[in-house]
Amino acid sequence: MIPELAGHLIHAGGKRLRPMLTLASARLFDYAGEDHVKLAAAVELIHGATLLHDDVVDASSLRRGASTANTIWGNKESVLVGDFIFSRSFELMVEAKNLDVLRSLSHASSIIAQGEVLQLTTQKNIAATFETYLQVVRAKTAALFAAATEVGAQISGRPAEEEIAMRRFGEDFGIAYQLVDDALDYAGFEYALGKTVGDDFREGKMTAPVVFAIERAREEEKPFWRRVIAEGRQEPGDFEKAQSLMERDGVIEDTFECARDYTQKALDALSKAPDNEYREALGDLALTSTARGS
Amino acid sequence: MIPELAGHLIHAGGKRLRPMLTLASARLFDYAGEDHVKLAAAVELIHGATLLHDDVVDASSLRRGASTANTIWGNKESVLVGDFIFSRSFELMVEAKNLDVLRSLSHASSIIAQGEVLQLTTQKNIAATFETYLQVVRAKTAALFAAATEVGAQISGRPAEEEIAMRRFGEDFGIAYQLVDDALDYAGFEYALGKTVGDDFREGKMTAPVVFAIERAREEEKPFWRRVIAEGRQEPGDFEKAQSLMERDGVIEDTFECARDYTQKALDALSKAPDNEYREALGDLALTSTARGS
Repeated sequence: MIPELAGHLIHAGGKRLRPMLTLASARLFDYAGEDHVKLAAAVELIHGATLLHDDVVDASSLRRGASTANTIWGNKESVLVGDFIFSRSFELMVEAKNLDVLRSLSHASSIIAQGEVLQLTTQKNIAATFETYLQVVRAKTAALFAAATEVGAQISGRPAEEEIAMRRFGEDFGIAYQLVDDALDYAGFEYALGKTVGDDFREGKMTAPVVFAIERAREEEKPFWRRVIAEGRQEPGDFEKAQSLMERDGVIEDTFECARDYTQKALDALSKAPDNEYREALGDLALTSTARGS
Repeated sequence: MIPELAGHLIHAGGKRLRPMLTLASARLFDYAGEDHVKLAAAVELIHGATLLHDDVVDASSLRRGASTANTIWGNKESVLVGDFIFSRSFELMVEAKNLDVLRSLSHASSIIAQGEVLQLTTQKNIAATFETYLQVVRAKTAALFAAATEVGAQISGRPAEEEIAMRRFGEDFGIAYQLVDDALDYAGFEYALGKTVGDDFREGKMTAPVVFAIERAREEEKPFWRRVIAEGRQEPGDFEKAQSLMERDGVIEDTFECARDYTQKALDALSKAPDNEYREALGDLALTSTARGS
């Protein structure tokens, strides 16, 4: 069952953004070995294990345009195969025999889990602030981006300031990436292609667009947000109403604007790395993947 | 929520058998550092994370005499906090800065997850053999016992044959331990004290007592086993009927006998380690904890 379930997840595709970060970061520093491939795979496996557990926790039925593993095989199966994939990622990274790398990736994993827990406890809490949202994003998304880019410098034996620069690049890129992702979950009226919308809304997730929308809501709109998010009682038309309130208050544009700020910060950090084609490719990746829809 | 949920699991007690194995194995080889404490904690955390996920998968409501975390906090919460505990165990073991140890423990983790999946896919399969059962036990239980004892030799920088001897001791001890545990799940009529009985039966787990009982069943008893295990349709009195069939066919005694064989193998392996008070303590631990009830 493991190869079938894991194969389903892996063959469903995805952008492979995180392993690309590791491969390109290693090459940026002229890394000549083979271990960056193992580490890139380990990074993608950590991400994959997280997705399997996420889909169980969110009771999601679609991922990357295909049925989720929990829908096909069941929740128990997804939990256990997620554990397996997660363990295999550790086995793989141990093969690279670099303690700094192991410290970065094992730390990122525990931060991710903390982010997932924080997200769960923040769900449906309409008092959650943008600061709390950022804390979730830093943990559940940016920590792995940061580790993915940092390990490229680490296996190349680069000085601490370059490790830190790559870490910052990954972290700010990760925040920008998640902001755009969360904006797109509400921006279906404009960018419907290839993207499911409304998932975060249905789950009552306190992402940037909702946090902004609630902050800007008029007194008479507050019961609406309380009902749909805090109480989770949603009716047909509620999502469209949320979208139109967000449009009126410029919430999606502001989320994209915020993402652009973080992308710029990421590029500033990256400018401290050696100037070569890999640095250029990483910069392009950050720009294009955070420009989706905005 | 993490400290509360994890604290609940940890404070509920347990025998702390696995970390004891690591501590005693390190001292057996005169290990003079402090890292064995971290590794012992990492071993117990791997075990704890597994328990949290196990209880979700088995929908268990009682563990160590207390309500399970999934009952109190919920399944999602148990999955995510389990992931956190698991990641923290990796962070801890990385601190010991020993690649052999990391290889052993990360490998054990992925074997455990494979064992959990195999157990799940074997559940309710009345054609499962004792060999398949042993494969599950080696993976889900013995792998961690083996790694727990092996790392004691590894951090002490002992020659390969001593590492192997300690590994074998842990592995055979682990098998014996699980055999006794699985026998006690049916031996409630004799050893009820402090032990829930009938959980494996209700879940249709193909443990040694059921495998033996089905092998020895008379033709007219086969529909009974099919109904209660394969079809999972259980009625009041079925567990007692299963127990009495097992008693008639000497199934529990044979499971204990099999456990004694593995304990003896474990002691034989241990005899290759230096003769001192820690070796004696480990031998006593194997003898007493596999003599529960038998």
